[in-house]
Amino acid sequence: MKAKVSITLKRGILDPQGQAVLHALSSLGYTGVKDVRVGKLIELDLATHDRAGAEAEVKAMCERLLANTIIEEYRIELME
Amino acid sequence: MKAKVSITLKRGILDPQGQAVLHALSSLGYTGVKDVRVGKLIELDLATHDRAGAEAEVKAMCERLLANTIIEEYRIELME
Repeated sequence: MKAKVSITLKRGILDPQGQAVLHALSSLGYTGVKDVRVGKLIELDLATHDRAGAEAEVKAMCERLLANTIIEEYRIELME
Repeated sequence: MKAKVSITLKRGILDPQGQAVLHALSSLGYTGVKDVRVGKLIELDLATHDRAGAEAEVKAMCERLLANTIIEEYRIELME
């Protein structure tokens, strides 16, 4: 089973990397971009096929290691 | 209109960051993880509401700036 974890900065947290991308896009002529936020995408390949167990385990991994829950939020998608 | 761009390393390209996360998870006791790949998630807030135009523009941004198409592939999702 595969898990896709999207980790993004919480609303209100400054995103300097996103601002840098926004400015770079603007210098390339893409002036129709109002805002950019940059996050992480972590794809996990899990040995288990138990959906509920996998979800709980990936949630624990996010809380303990993958995300900094003070400033980031995460979303988990599971696929067979 | 919002665009979500997922940028991942192509299959076959080594992912040292993913390997580091895999080892860290394994030391925390999550031994049921077979592989980890780390990518980027870029969320763009676009001024336009023209779906086809937005898709073409975001694709051009990926090719020119956001992704390194030698080693990375990208997927674009558009939302109102």
